Amino acid sequence: MSEAQRSARAFVPGHVTGFFSAHPHDDPERTGSRGAGLTLSDGVTVSVEPAGESSVLLNGTPCAVDAVERVLASMDVTASVDAETSLPLGAGFGVSGAMALGTALAVNHAFERGRSENELVTVAHTAEVRAGTGLGDVVAQARGGIPIRLEPGAPGHGALDGVPETTRIEYVTLGELSTADVLSGDTETLSRAGEEALAALVEEPTLTTFMDASRRFARRTDLLTPEVREIVDDVENTGGDASMAMLGRTVFALGTGLSDAGYDASACHTHPAGMRLVE
Amino acid sequence: MSEAQRSARAFVPGHVTGFFSAHPHDDPERTGSRGAGLTLSDGVTVSVEPAGESSVLLNGTPCAVDAVERVLASMDVTASVDAETSLPLGAGFGVSGAMALGTALAVNHAFERGRSENELVTVAHTAEVRAGTGLGDVVAQARGGIPIRLEPGAPGHGALDGVPETTRIEYVTLGELSTADVLSGDTETLSRAGEEALAALVEEPTLTTFMDASRRFARRTDLLTPEVREIVDDVENTGGDASMAMLGRTVFALGTGLSDAGYDASACHTHPAGMRLVE
Repeated sequence: MSEAQRSARAFVPGHVTGFFSAHPHDDPERTGSRGAGLTLSDGVTVSVEPAGESSVLLNGTPCAVDAVERVLASMDVTASVDAETSLPLGAGFGVSGAMALGTALAVNHAFERGRSENELVTVAHTAEVRAGTGLGDVVAQARGGIPIRLEPGAPGHGALDGVPETTRIEYVTLGELSTADVLSGDTETLSRAGEEALAALVEEPTLTTFMDASRRFARRTDLLTPEVREIVDDVENTGGDASMAMLGRTVFALGTGLSDAGYDASACHTHPAGMRLVE
Repeated sequence: MSEAQRSARAFVPGHVTGFFSAHPHDDPERTGSRGAGLTLSDGVTVSVEPAGESSVLLNGTPCAVDAVERVLASMDVTASVDAETSLPLGAGFGVSGAMALGTALAVNHAFERGRSENELVTVAHTAEVRAGTGLGDVVAQARGGIPIRLEPGAPGHGALDGVPETTRIEYVTLGELSTADVLSGDTETLSRAGEEALAALVEEPTLTTFMDASRRFARRTDLLTPEVREIVDDVENTGGDASMAMLGRTVFALGTGLSDAGYDASACHTHPAGMRLVE
Protein backbone atom coordinates (compact mmCIF):
# COMPACT_ATOMS: atom_id res chain seq x y z
CA MET A 1 0.00 0.00 0.00
CA SER A 2 1.38 3.42 -0.91
CA GLU A 3 1.45 5.84 1.97
CA ALA A 4 1.10 9.49 0.99
CA GLN A 5 3.48 11.22 3.38
CA ARG A 6 1.55 14.44 3.84
CA SER A 7 -0.06 16.20 6.75
CA ALA A 8 -3.75 17.00 7.10
CA ARG A 9 -5.88 19.08 9.42
CA ALA A 10 -9.52 18.78 10.53
CA PHE A 11 -11.90 20.93 12.56
CA VAL A 12 -14.58 19.37 14.76
CA PRO A 13 -17.15 21.49 16.63
CA GLY A 14 -17.51 21.25 20.41
CA HIS A 15 -20.70 19.67 21.77
CA VAL A 16 -22.61 20.14 25.01
CA THR A 17 -25.25 17.57 25.84
CA GLY A 18 -28.35 18.86 27.64
CA PHE A 19 -29.83 15.46 28.51
CA PHE A 20 -29.27 11.83 27.61
CA SER A 21 -30.03 8.19 28.29
CA ALA A 22 -27.27 5.56 28.15
CA HIS A 23 -27.70 2.50 25.90
CA PRO A 24 -24.90 -0.03 26.42
CA HIS A 25 -24.60 -3.00 24.04
CA ASP A 26 -22.07 -5.79 23.50
CA ASP A 27 -21.33 -4.28 20.09
CA PRO A 28 -19.69 -0.83 20.49
CA GLU A 29 -21.20 0.28 17.16
CA ARG A 30 -24.65 -0.26 18.70
CA THR A 31 -23.67 1.30 22.02
CA GLY A 32 -24.51 4.96 22.45
CA SER A 33 -26.93 7.43 23.92
CA ARG A 34 -30.21 9.03 23.09
CA GLY A 35 -30.48 12.72 23.91
CA ALA A 36 -29.82 16.18 22.53
CA GLY A 37 -27.23 18.92 22.63
CA LEU A 38 -25.71 21.92 20.92
CA THR A 39 -22.69 21.78 18.62
CA LEU A 40 -20.46 24.82 19.08
CA SER A 41 -18.41 27.04 16.76
CA ASP A 42 -15.72 26.73 19.46
CA GLY A 43 -14.17 23.37 18.67
CA VAL A 44 -10.98 21.39 18.21
CA THR A 45 -8.49 21.62 15.34
CA VAL A 46 -6.57 18.38 14.86
CA SER A 47 -3.39 18.20 12.77
CA VAL A 48 -2.00 14.82 11.80
CA GLU A 49 1.41 14.01 10.35
CA PRO A 50 2.88 10.59 9.58
CA ALA A 51 5.57 9.66 12.14
CA GLY A 52 7.63 6.63 13.09
CA GLU A 53 6.02 6.57 16.51
CA SER A 54 2.61 7.92 17.54
CA SER A 55 2.29 10.90 19.88
CA VAL A 56 -0.56 13.15 20.97
CA LEU A 57 -0.32 16.83 21.91
CA LEU A 58 -3.25 18.79 23.33
CA ASN A 59 -2.62 22.55 23.32
CA GLY A 60 1.10 21.80 23.07
CA THR A 61 1.22 19.38 26.00
CA PRO A 62 1.82 15.64 25.52
CA CYS A 63 -1.16 13.70 26.79
CA ALA A 64 -2.65 10.21 26.65
CA VAL A 65 -6.07 10.23 24.98
CA ASP A 66 -7.27 6.65 24.81
CA ALA A 67 -9.88 7.34 22.11
CA VAL A 68 -7.28 8.92 19.81
CA GLU A 69 -4.83 6.05 20.30
CA ARG A 70 -7.61 3.61 19.43
CA VAL A 71 -8.40 5.54 16.23
CA LEU A 72 -4.74 5.41 15.15
CA ALA A 73 -4.57 1.68 15.89
CA SER A 74 -7.86 0.97 14.13
CA MET A 75 -6.68 2.86 11.02
CA ASP A 76 -3.33 1.08 11.21
CA VAL A 77 -1.08 4.16 11.23
CA THR A 78 1.52 5.79 13.42
CA ALA A 79 1.28 9.57 13.43
CA SER A 80 1.87 12.66 15.49
CA VAL A 81 -1.48 14.20 16.45
CA ASP A 82 -1.53 17.86 17.43
CA ALA A 83 -4.86 19.15 18.80
CA GLU A 84 -5.61 22.78 19.61
CA THR A 85 -8.73 24.05 21.36
CA SER A 86 -9.96 27.03 23.36
CA LEU A 87 -12.60 24.80 25.01
CA PRO A 88 -12.22 23.87 28.70
CA LEU A 89 -11.03 20.26 29.17
CA GLY A 90 -12.97 17.59 31.04
CA ALA A 91 -15.88 19.97 31.37
CA GLY A 92 -18.54 18.50 29.07
CA PHE A 93 -17.58 19.99 25.69
CA GLY A 94 -16.84 16.72 23.91
CA VAL A 95 -13.13 17.44 23.46
CA SER A 96 -12.15 13.74 23.49
CA GLY A 97 -14.84 12.93 20.91
CA ALA A 98 -13.68 15.84 18.76
CA MET A 99 -10.07 14.65 19.00
CA ALA A 100 -11.06 11.11 18.00
CA LEU A 101 -13.19 12.28 15.07
CA GLY A 102 -10.69 14.91 13.91
CA THR A 103 -7.92 12.31 14.03
CA ALA A 104 -9.96 9.84 11.95
CA LEU A 105 -10.76 12.48 9.31
CA ALA A 106 -7.21 13.87 9.11
CA VAL A 107 -5.62 10.40 9.05
CA ASN A 108 -7.95 9.35 6.24
CA HIS A 109 -6.73 12.32 4.19
CA ALA A 110 -3.03 12.24 5.11
CA PHE A 111 -2.69 8.48 4.57
CA GLU A 112 -5.22 8.26 1.71
CA ARG A 113 -7.21 5.60 3.53
CA GLY A 114 -10.25 6.03 1.27
CA ARG A 115 -12.89 5.63 3.98
CA SER A 116 -16.35 7.19 3.72
CA GLU A 117 -17.66 9.73 6.24
CA ASN A 118 -19.90 7.13 7.89
CA GLU A 119 -16.92 4.78 8.22
CA LEU A 120 -14.81 7.50 9.86
CA VAL A 121 -17.61 8.37 12.29
CA THR A 122 -17.92 4.66 13.13
CA VAL A 123 -14.16 4.40 13.80
CA ALA A 124 -14.23 7.43 16.12
CA HIS A 125 -17.50 6.48 17.86
CA THR A 126 -16.26 2.94 18.53
CA ALA A 127 -12.94 4.28 19.88
CA GLU A 128 -14.72 6.71 22.21
CA VAL A 129 -17.13 4.03 23.47
CA ARG A 130 -14.29 1.55 24.10
CA ALA A 131 -12.31 4.26 25.91
CA GLY A 132 -15.37 4.89 28.10
CA THR A 133 -15.16 8.64 27.57
CA GLY A 134 -18.39 9.28 25.69
CA LEU A 135 -21.51 7.79 24.11
CA GLY A 136 -23.03 10.42 21.86
CA ASP A 137 -20.61 13.28 21.21
CA VAL A 138 -19.02 11.81 18.08
CA VAL A 139 -22.21 11.26 16.09
CA ALA A 140 -23.45 14.72 17.11
CA GLN A 141 -20.15 16.40 16.20
CA ALA A 142 -20.14 14.71 12.80
CA ARG A 143 -23.55 16.25 12.07
CA GLY A 144 -23.38 19.81 13.45
CA GLY A 145 -26.33 22.04 14.30
CA ILE A 146 -28.49 21.12 17.29
CA PRO A 147 -28.51 17.31 17.04
CA ILE A 148 -31.25 15.13 18.50
CA ARG A 149 -30.02 11.57 19.02
CA LEU A 150 -33.17 9.54 18.35
CA GLU A 151 -31.47 6.15 18.35
CA PRO A 152 -28.07 5.25 19.83
CA GLY A 153 -25.01 4.14 17.94
CA ALA A 154 -22.83 4.68 14.90
CA PRO A 155 -24.19 5.39 11.39
CA GLY A 156 -26.28 2.45 10.18
CA HIS A 157 -27.51 1.83 13.73
CA GLY A 158 -28.18 5.27 15.22
CA ALA A 159 -30.65 7.86 13.98
CA LEU A 160 -30.42 11.63 14.22
CA ASP A 161 -32.71 14.60 13.79
CA GLY A 162 -32.10 18.28 14.57
CA VAL A 163 -33.69 21.43 15.98
CA PRO A 164 -33.82 23.85 13.01
CA GLU A 165 -32.57 26.93 14.88
CA THR A 166 -29.32 28.80 15.47
CA THR A 167 -28.27 30.78 18.51
CA ARG A 168 -25.46 32.54 20.34
CA ILE A 169 -24.23 30.45 23.28
CA GLU A 170 -22.42 31.52 26.43
CA TYR A 171 -20.69 29.21 28.90
CA VAL A 172 -18.77 29.20 32.18
CA THR A 173 -16.90 26.25 33.65
CA LEU A 174 -16.19 25.53 37.32
CA GLY A 175 -14.03 22.46 36.80
CA GLU A 176 -13.94 18.85 35.79
CA LEU A 177 -16.41 15.99 36.22
CA SER A 178 -15.47 12.48 35.18
CA THR A 179 -17.63 11.12 32.37
CA ALA A 180 -16.26 7.64 33.06
CA ASP A 181 -17.35 7.75 36.74
CA VAL A 182 -20.91 8.78 35.93
CA LEU A 183 -21.26 6.38 33.00
CA SER A 184 -19.95 3.45 35.05
CA GLY A 185 -22.35 4.22 37.93
CA ASP A 186 -26.09 3.51 38.17
CA THR A 187 -27.55 5.03 35.02
CA GLU A 188 -31.14 3.81 35.42
CA THR A 189 -32.74 6.92 36.97
CA LEU A 190 -30.68 9.04 34.65
CA SER A 191 -31.81 7.14 31.58
CA ARG A 192 -35.47 7.27 32.57
CA ALA A 193 -35.23 11.05 32.96
CA GLY A 194 -33.36 11.24 29.65
CA GLU A 195 -36.03 9.29 27.77
CA GLU A 196 -38.73 11.62 29.13
CA ALA A 197 -36.74 14.69 28.12
CA LEU A 198 -36.29 13.26 24.63
CA ALA A 199 -40.01 12.55 24.28
CA ALA A 200 -40.74 16.19 25.16
CA LEU A 201 -38.24 17.49 22.58
CA VAL A 202 -39.48 15.17 19.83
CA GLU A 203 -43.01 16.42 20.53
CA GLU A 204 -41.85 20.03 20.12
CA PRO A 205 -38.35 20.31 18.59
CA THR A 206 -37.53 23.91 19.55
CA LEU A 207 -34.66 25.53 21.46
CA THR A 208 -37.03 26.55 24.26
CA THR A 209 -38.17 22.97 24.78
CA PHE A 210 -34.56 21.77 24.61
CA MET A 211 -33.54 24.13 27.42
CA ASP A 212 -36.61 23.29 29.56
CA ALA A 213 -36.07 19.56 29.11
CA SER A 214 -32.34 19.89 29.88
CA ARG A 215 -32.98 21.79 33.11
CA ARG A 216 -35.61 19.30 34.26
CA PHE A 217 -33.21 16.44 33.47
CA ALA A 218 -30.35 18.04 35.43
CA ARG A 219 -32.56 18.54 38.50
CA ARG A 220 -34.13 15.08 38.45
CA THR A 221 -30.84 13.25 38.08
CA ASP A 222 -29.06 15.03 40.96
CA LEU A 223 -26.22 15.97 38.63
CA LEU A 224 -26.80 19.67 39.28
CA THR A 225 -24.23 20.55 41.98
CA PRO A 226 -25.12 23.47 44.33
CA GLU A 227 -22.66 25.89 42.63
CA VAL A 228 -23.92 25.00 39.13
CA ARG A 229 -27.54 25.29 40.29
CA GLU A 230 -26.83 28.77 41.70
CA ILE A 231 -25.55 30.01 38.34
CA VAL A 232 -28.47 28.45 36.44
CA ASP A 233 -30.86 30.13 38.90
CA ASP A 234 -29.09 33.49 38.54
CA VAL A 235 -29.52 33.33 34.76
CA GLU A 236 -33.20 32.41 35.09
CA ASN A 237 -33.77 35.23 37.60
CA THR A 238 -32.47 37.78 35.08
CA GLY A 239 -34.81 36.39 32.41
CA GLY A 240 -32.31 34.11 30.71
CA ASP A 241 -32.25 30.44 29.78
CA ALA A 242 -29.44 28.18 31.08
CA SER A 243 -28.68 24.57 31.96
CA MET A 244 -25.77 22.27 32.80
CA ALA A 245 -23.50 20.54 30.29
CA MET A 246 -23.66 16.72 30.61
CA LEU A 247 -21.15 15.80 31.88
CA GLY A 248 -19.18 18.73 33.25
CA ARG A 249 -19.33 21.42 35.92
CA THR A 250 -20.32 23.79 33.14
CA VAL A 251 -23.30 26.11 32.68
CA PHE A 252 -24.38 27.04 29.16
CA ALA A 253 -26.92 29.73 28.31
CA LEU A 254 -28.70 31.02 25.23
CA GLY A 255 -27.85 34.47 23.87
CA THR A 256 -26.36 36.74 26.54
CA GLY A 257 -27.90 34.88 29.49
CA LEU A 258 -24.72 34.52 31.54
CA SER A 259 -23.26 37.97 30.89
CA ASP A 260 -26.66 39.54 31.64
CA ALA A 261 -26.51 37.80 35.03
CA GLY A 262 -23.06 39.30 35.67
CA TYR A 263 -20.87 36.31 34.80
CA ASP A 264 -17.63 36.51 32.83
CA ALA A 265 -18.64 33.98 30.16
CA SER A 266 -17.09 32.69 26.94
CA ALA A 267 -19.29 33.18 23.87
CA CYS A 268 -19.74 31.29 20.62
CA HIS A 269 -22.55 30.12 18.32
CA THR A 270 -24.20 26.88 17.35
CA HIS A 271 -22.17 25.42 14.49
CA PRO A 272 -23.98 24.81 11.20
CA ALA A 273 -21.67 22.02 10.00
CA GLY A 274 -20.12 18.84 11.33
CA MET A 275 -16.49 17.74 11.06
CA ARG A 276 -14.53 19.03 8.10
CA LEU A 277 -11.05 19.15 6.61
CA VAL A 278 -9.37 22.58 6.75
CA GLU A 279 -6.52 23.97 4.66
CA MET B 1 -52.70 29.07 16.86
CA SER B 2 -50.63 32.20 17.30
CA GLU B 3 -48.86 33.32 14.15
CA ALA B 4 -45.62 35.17 14.79
CA GLN B 5 -45.64 37.85 12.12
CA ARG B 6 -41.94 37.97 11.42
CA SER B 7 -39.75 37.31 8.43
CA ALA B 8 -37.04 34.67 8.20
CA ARG B 9 -34.24 33.83 5.78
CA ALA B 10 -32.52 30.55 4.93
CA PHE B 11 -29.51 29.59 2.83
CA VAL B 12 -29.40 26.27 0.96
CA PRO B 13 -26.32 25.13 -0.99
CA GLY B 14 -26.53 24.31 -4.69
CA HIS B 15 -26.11 20.65 -5.68
CA VAL B 16 -24.80 19.01 -8.86
CA THR B 17 -25.48 15.31 -9.25
CA GLY B 18 -22.76 13.28 -10.99
CA PHE B 19 -24.77 10.08 -11.41
CA PHE B 20 -28.04 8.62 -10.16
CA SER B 21 -30.64 5.89 -10.42
CA ALA B 22 -34.35 6.69 -10.16
CA HIS B 23 -36.52 4.89 -7.58
CA PRO B 24 -40.19 5.73 -7.97
CA HIS B 25 -42.69 4.57 -5.32
CA ASP B 26 -46.38 5.16 -4.62
CA ASP B 27 -45.36 6.99 -1.44
CA PRO B 28 -43.46 10.21 -2.30
CA GLU B 29 -41.51 9.94 0.96
CA ARG B 30 -40.08 6.65 -0.30
CA THR B 31 -39.55 7.95 -3.82
CA GLY B 32 -36.09 9.24 -4.59
CA SER B 33 -32.78 8.48 -6.18
CA ARG B 34 -29.55 6.75 -5.34
CA GLY B 35 -26.41 8.50 -6.52
CA ALA B 36 -23.87 11.12 -5.56
CA GLY B 37 -23.08 14.77 -6.09
CA LEU B 38 -21.36 17.88 -4.81
CA THR B 39 -23.06 20.54 -2.67
CA LEU B 40 -21.85 24.01 -3.57
CA SER B 41 -21.04 27.17 -1.62
CA ASP B 42 -22.98 28.93 -4.41
CA GLY B 43 -26.58 28.42 -3.37
CA VAL B 44 -29.97 29.99 -2.88
CA THR B 45 -31.03 32.47 -0.20
CA VAL B 46 -34.76 32.30 0.51
CA SER B 47 -36.57 35.03 2.43
CA VAL B 48 -40.10 34.40 3.66
CA GLU B 49 -42.60 36.88 5.00
CA PRO B 50 -46.21 36.28 6.04
CA ALA B 51 -48.64 37.72 3.44
CA GLY B 52 -52.35 37.63 2.71
CA GLU B 53 -51.67 35.90 -0.59
CA SER B 54 -48.69 33.75 -1.56
CA SER B 55 -46.19 34.89 -4.18
CA VAL B 56 -42.79 33.68 -5.34
CA LEU B 57 -39.95 35.83 -6.68
CA LEU B 58 -36.76 34.37 -8.14
CA ASN B 59 -34.03 36.99 -8.55
CA GLY B 60 -36.72 39.65 -8.44
CA THR B 61 -38.94 38.08 -11.09
CA PRO B 62 -42.34 36.57 -10.26
CA CYS B 63 -42.33 32.89 -11.15
CA ALA B 64 -44.35 29.74 -10.53
CA VAL B 65 -42.31 27.10 -8.71
CA ASP B 66 -44.57 24.14 -8.09
CA ALA B 67 -42.37 22.65 -5.33
CA VAL B 68 -42.42 25.93 -3.38
CA GLU B 69 -46.18 26.28 -3.69
CA ARG B 70 -46.58 22.72 -2.41
CA VAL B 71 -44.37 23.48 0.60
CA LEU B 72 -46.47 26.53 1.48
CA ALA B 73 -49.69 24.53 1.14
CA SER B 74 -48.32 21.62 3.15
CA MET B 75 -47.25 23.96 5.97
CA ASP B 76 -50.62 25.71 5.77
CA VAL B 77 -49.36 29.27 5.31
CA THR B 78 -49.61 32.09 2.81
CA ALA B 79 -46.37 34.01 2.41
CA SER B 80 -44.25 35.99 0.01
CA VAL B 81 -41.17 33.99 -0.91
CA ASP B 82 -38.17 35.88 -2.27
CA ALA B 83 -35.30 33.72 -3.58
CA GLU B 84 -31.93 35.05 -4.73
CA THR B 85 -29.24 33.00 -6.42
CA SER B 86 -26.20 33.43 -8.65
CA LEU B 87 -26.62 29.85 -9.91
CA PRO B 88 -27.82 29.25 -13.50
CA LEU B 89 -31.49 28.18 -13.64
CA GLY B 90 -32.71 24.88 -15.09
CA ALA B 91 -29.12 23.77 -15.53
CA GLY B 92 -28.70 21.01 -12.94
CA PHE B 93 -27.82 22.99 -9.79
CA GLY B 94 -30.83 21.97 -7.71
CA VAL B 95 -32.30 25.46 -7.56
CA SER B 96 -35.89 24.20 -7.26
CA GLY B 97 -34.90 21.82 -4.45
CA ALA B 98 -33.05 24.62 -2.69
CA MET B 99 -36.07 26.90 -3.00
CA ALA B 100 -38.39 24.22 -1.59
CA LEU B 101 -36.05 23.42 1.32
CA GLY B 102 -35.23 27.06 2.07
CA THR B 103 -38.94 27.88 2.05
CA ALA B 104 -39.71 25.05 4.49
CA LEU B 105 -36.93 26.14 6.88
CA ALA B 106 -37.78 29.85 6.73
CA VAL B 107 -41.54 29.24 7.06
CA ASN B 108 -40.94 27.04 10.11
CA HIS B 109 -39.06 29.92 11.75
CA ALA B 110 -41.26 32.82 10.64
CA PHE B 111 -44.51 31.07 11.54
CA GLU B 112 -43.11 29.17 14.57
CA ARG B 113 -44.28 25.85 13.15
CA GLY B 114 -42.07 23.82 15.54
CA ARG B 115 -41.07 21.14 13.02
CA SER B 116 -37.81 19.19 13.31
CA GLU B 117 -35.13 19.27 10.62
CA ASN B 118 -36.09 15.80 9.38
CA GLU B 119 -39.74 16.90 9.13
CA LEU B 120 -38.78 19.98 7.09
CA VAL B 121 -36.61 17.90 4.75
CA THR B 122 -39.54 15.50 4.32
CA VAL B 123 -41.92 18.37 3.47
CA ALA B 124 -39.51 19.76 0.84
CA HIS B 125 -38.55 16.36 -0.60
CA THR B 126 -42.20 15.35 -0.96
CA ALA B 127 -43.06 18.67 -2.62
CA GLU B 128 -40.15 18.31 -5.10
CA VAL B 129 -41.10 14.69 -5.93
CA ARG B 130 -44.77 15.59 -6.45
CA ALA B 131 -43.75 18.53 -8.63
CA GLY B 132 -41.64 16.13 -10.71
CA THR B 133 -38.63 18.47 -10.59
CA GLY B 134 -36.16 16.35 -8.63
CA LEU B 135 -35.55 13.12 -6.72
CA GLY B 136 -32.40 13.57 -4.68
CA ASP B 137 -31.37 17.22 -4.46
CA VAL B 138 -33.31 18.05 -1.30
CA VAL B 139 -31.85 15.32 0.93
CA ALA B 140 -28.36 16.13 -0.39
CA GLN B 141 -28.79 19.87 0.15
CA ALA B 142 -30.00 19.31 3.71
CA ARG B 143 -26.77 17.44 4.46
CA GLY B 144 -24.00 19.39 2.72
CA GLY B 145 -20.54 18.14 1.80
CA ILE B 146 -20.26 15.52 -0.96
CA PRO B 147 -23.36 13.42 -0.31
CA ILE B 148 -23.70 9.79 -1.38
CA ARG B 149 -27.35 8.76 -1.58
CA LEU B 150 -27.21 5.11 -0.52
CA GLU B 151 -30.96 4.63 -0.25
CA PRO B 152 -33.70 6.77 -1.83
CA GLY B 153 -36.23 8.87 0.01
CA ALA B 154 -36.86 11.28 2.83
CA PRO B 155 -35.31 10.92 6.32
CA GLY B 156 -36.47 7.69 7.95
CA HIS B 157 -36.49 5.95 4.55
CA GLY B 158 -33.37 7.17 2.74
CA ALA B 159 -29.77 6.70 3.84
CA LEU B 160 -26.81 8.97 3.20
CA ASP B 161 -23.05 8.78 3.45
CA GLY B 162 -20.40 11.26 2.26
CA VAL B 163 -17.01 11.55 0.60
CA PRO B 164 -14.76 13.12 3.29
CA GLU B 165 -13.04 15.66 1.05
CA THR B 166 -13.37 19.31 0.08
CA THR B 167 -12.48 20.96 -3.21
CA ARG B 168 -12.73 24.06 -5.35
CA ILE B 169 -15.31 23.60 -8.12
CA GLU B 170 -15.63 25.36 -11.47
CA TYR B 171 -18.64 25.24 -13.77
CA VAL B 172 -19.93 26.46 -17.13
CA THR B 173 -23.49 26.20 -18.40
CA LEU B 174 -24.69 25.98 -21.98
CA GLY B 175 -28.39 26.13 -21.26
CA GLU B 176 -31.38 24.29 -19.88
CA LEU B 177 -32.36 20.62 -19.87
CA SER B 178 -35.72 19.56 -18.52
CA THR B 179 -35.46 17.31 -15.46
CA ALA B 180 -39.13 16.45 -15.84
CA ASP B 181 -38.64 15.23 -19.45
CA VAL B 182 -35.75 12.92 -18.56
CA LEU B 183 -37.36 11.62 -15.38
CA SER B 184 -40.63 10.87 -17.18
CA GLY B 185 -38.81 8.99 -19.97
CA ASP B 186 -37.32 5.50 -19.92
CA THR B 187 -35.04 5.47 -16.90
CA GLU B 188 -34.04 1.78 -16.96
CA THR B 189 -30.67 2.02 -18.75
CA LEU B 190 -29.94 5.15 -16.79
CA SER B 191 -30.70 3.50 -13.46
CA ARG B 192 -28.56 0.43 -14.24
CA ALA B 193 -25.62 2.70 -15.06
CA GLY B 194 -26.33 4.70 -11.91
CA GLU B 195 -26.32 1.62 -9.68
CA GLU B 196 -22.95 0.54 -11.12
CA ALA B 197 -21.48 3.99 -10.57
CA LEU B 198 -22.73 3.93 -6.97
CA ALA B 199 -21.19 0.52 -6.33
CA ALA B 200 -17.83 1.85 -7.56
CA LEU B 201 -18.04 4.91 -5.29
CA VAL B 202 -19.09 2.89 -2.22
CA GLU B 203 -16.11 0.60 -2.85
CA GLU B 204 -13.78 3.61 -2.89
CA PRO B 205 -15.42 6.82 -1.61
CA THR B 206 -12.98 9.40 -2.98
CA LEU B 207 -13.37 12.46 -5.22
CA THR B 208 -11.33 10.79 -7.96
CA THR B 209 -13.68 7.79 -8.04
CA PHE B 210 -16.69 10.12 -7.95
CA MET B 211 -15.48 11.98 -11.05
CA ASP B 212 -14.56 8.76 -12.90
CA ALA B 213 -17.91 7.17 -12.09
CA SER B 214 -19.78 10.34 -13.11
CA ARG B 215 -18.04 10.53 -16.49
CA ARG B 216 -18.69 6.85 -17.22
CA PHE B 217 -22.35 7.32 -16.25
CA ALA B 218 -22.75 10.35 -18.54
CA ARG B 219 -21.25 8.48 -21.50
CA ARG B 220 -23.23 5.27 -21.01
CA THR B 221 -26.57 7.00 -20.62
CA ASP B 222 -26.27 9.16 -23.75
CA LEU B 223 -26.98 12.26 -21.73
CA LEU B 224 -23.65 13.78 -22.73
CA THR B 225 -24.52 16.10 -25.63
CA PRO B 226 -21.74 16.75 -28.21
CA GLU B 227 -21.03 20.29 -26.94
CA VAL B 228 -20.86 19.14 -23.32
CA ARG B 229 -18.65 16.20 -24.28
CA GLU B 230 -16.27 18.57 -26.08
CA ILE B 231 -15.76 20.67 -22.96
CA VAL B 232 -15.30 17.60 -20.73
CA ASP B 233 -12.71 16.30 -23.20
CA ASP B 234 -10.92 19.67 -23.30
CA VAL B 235 -10.59 19.64 -19.52
CA GLU B 236 -9.30 16.07 -19.53
CA ASN B 237 -6.80 16.88 -22.29
CA THR B 238 -5.31 19.64 -20.15
CA GLY B 239 -4.95 17.24 -17.21
CA GLY B 240 -8.16 18.21 -15.40
CA ASP B 241 -11.15 16.31 -14.12
CA ALA B 242 -14.67 17.22 -15.32
CA SER B 243 -18.12 15.75 -15.87
CA MET B 244 -21.70 16.76 -16.62
CA ALA B 245 -24.28 17.94 -14.07
CA MET B 246 -27.32 15.65 -13.98
CA LEU B 247 -29.59 17.07 -15.29
CA GLY B 248 -28.37 20.17 -17.06
CA ARG B 249 -26.23 21.27 -19.99
CA THR B 250 -23.55 22.06 -17.42
CA VAL B 251 -19.93 20.95 -17.05
CA PHE B 252 -18.36 20.96 -13.58
CA ALA B 253 -14.66 20.45 -12.89
CA LEU B 254 -12.43 20.03 -9.86
CA GLY B 255 -9.99 22.80 -8.93
CA THR B 256 -9.11 25.01 -11.90
CA GLY B 257 -9.93 22.38 -14.54
CA LEU B 258 -12.14 24.59 -16.72
CA SER B 259 -10.10 27.79 -16.53
CA ASP B 260 -6.92 25.78 -17.24
CA ALA B 261 -8.63 24.58 -20.43
CA GLY B 262 -9.38 28.18 -21.41
CA TYR B 263 -13.04 28.42 -20.37
CA ASP B 264 -14.57 31.39 -18.61
CA ALA B 265 -15.94 29.45 -15.64
CA SER B 266 -17.69 30.33 -12.39
CA ALA B 267 -15.90 29.13 -9.28
CA CYS B 268 -17.01 28.04 -5.82
CA HIS B 269 -16.26 25.31 -3.26
CA THR B 270 -17.93 22.24 -1.87
CA HIS B 271 -20.12 23.41 1.02
CA PRO B 272 -19.42 21.93 4.46
CA ALA B 273 -22.96 22.40 5.81
CA GLY B 274 -26.51 21.78 4.72
CA MET B 275 -29.46 24.19 4.91
CA ARG B 276 -29.34 26.83 7.61
CA LEU B 277 -31.14 29.92 8.86
CA VAL B 278 -29.27 33.19 8.27
CA GLU B 279 -29.61 36.53 10.08
